[in-house]
Amino acid sequence: MSFIKGEKVIVVLSGGMDSATLLYHIKDMGAEPIAISFDYNQKHRKELQSARELITYTATKQWKIFDLYDLADITGKSSLTNEDTAVPEGHYTDQSMRSTVVPNRNMVMLSIAASWAVNEGAIGVATGVHAGDHAIYPDCRTEFIVHMETTLKLANDGFIHPHFQVIAPYIQMDKAGIVQIGTRLGVPYGITWSCYKGGNIHCGKCGTCVERREAFSDASVEDPTEYEA
Amino acid sequence: MSFIKGEKVIVVLSGGMDSATLLYHIKDMGAEPIAISFDYNQKHRKELQSARELITYTATKQWKIFDLYDLADITGKSSLTNEDTAVPEGHYTDQSMRSTVVPNRNMVMLSIAASWAVNEGAIGVATGVHAGDHAIYPDCRTEFIVHMETTLKLANDGFIHPHFQVIAPYIQMDKAGIVQIGTRLGVPYGITWSCYKGGNIHCGKCGTCVERREAFSDASVEDPTEYEA
Repeated sequence: MSFIKGEKVIVVLSGGMDSATLLYHIKDMGAEPIAISFDYNQKHRKELQSARELITYTATKQWKIFDLYDLADITGKSSLTNEDTAVPEGHYTDQSMRSTVVPNRNMVMLSIAASWAVNEGAIGVATGVHAGDHAIYPDCRTEFIVHMETTLKLANDGFIHPHFQVIAPYIQMDKAGIVQIGTRLGVPYGITWSCYKGGNIHCGKCGTCVERREAFSDASVEDPTEYEA
Repeated sequence: MSFIKGEKVIVVLSGGMDSATLLYHIKDMGAEPIAISFDYNQKHRKELQSARELITYTATKQWKIFDLYDLADITGKSSLTNEDTAVPEGHYTDQSMRSTVVPNRNMVMLSIAASWAVNEGAIGVATGVHAGDHAIYPDCRTEFIVHMETTLKLANDGFIHPHFQVIAPYIQMDKAGIVQIGTRLGVPYGITWSCYKGGNIHCGKCGTCVERREAFSDASVEDPTEYEA
């Protein structure tokens, strides 16, 4: 994929490895990224500090932390936002990881990103969803991305960029593939944050930590992360 | 349409005539409405007071004003949220009314409502969009509603109610038809709010006031509204 220099793309930036890579990648493809991060009272909102550092590193001109605090209120059943439910440990494909689902999260975030895209005349919204997430998260699948793009075009017919796309370059790729791309692009993975528990350092045991470790190992790239366990 | 008693439906409630009718209508069809309203720093946020009164009148048990304040920040080009741009006057089909579009507003609201629906096991999300809006607002058209439903089902596959629907009973109806339904259901239109200018009383001149007046007149129902002009 390639962009005409200066074309704007709204990048959904969590502060994790995937969206960090995406931010560097979109820039590398010639577009001007505009980044949006979301505060939905996630236990790992520490990721927003990582997002800020990534914005500085990439000299991204426009960035907004969007207050979605109320989303936690209406999705109280997710262990990612509910203080009374522990984030489960173990591999990402385990049934228990279902508890980490925040219902419709990607659709809400992409919809809001698209509001901004229309306002800015951006050519697309970009998301770091990847194949490793498909088992648990239905909103990380190709089918969803394809339908999301169609629905966004219909919802904003006459207002949206005529070549608007939902850009999801990693949708058919695993996390190790992302690490390989990001390593070529010089992504500073040491400042990214994955752990869903949001402690001082990565716990090393929750699904997203397990996946982070595996990604570096499978990609044969040195893991700069300090883990508790 | 009919529901099994006690089935939950998330109703997007602005406080205007259409969504007021919808709230009464969903209840009348046997479902238990859960209402959600949005504060996006709209000039006519006075509509939220009307929403509150409607909640009281219908004895709706669950209602939330969702803080979407940051949406105004990223859609600064709409006259509905931008203090420096006046809400245009005149009939709704005029080109100038395009300035009232808040990009992707319905999709954002329905996406958030769907998050709540999944969390509550609700059978659907309901919206008061109607045929009169089609000319200006692409997110008030049947095609959008149909694709929105498909996308929501894909995004929440395995989590969403198996019979989930986006309920838009007025999509092929004009506002006069809505007034006729609401009058039969006893909707207290006097407490609803339409005017985009958000003054003390309805201005009577902006597109949504013009439409409100016409709806009562076309439905041959007495208009309880006090207008400035």
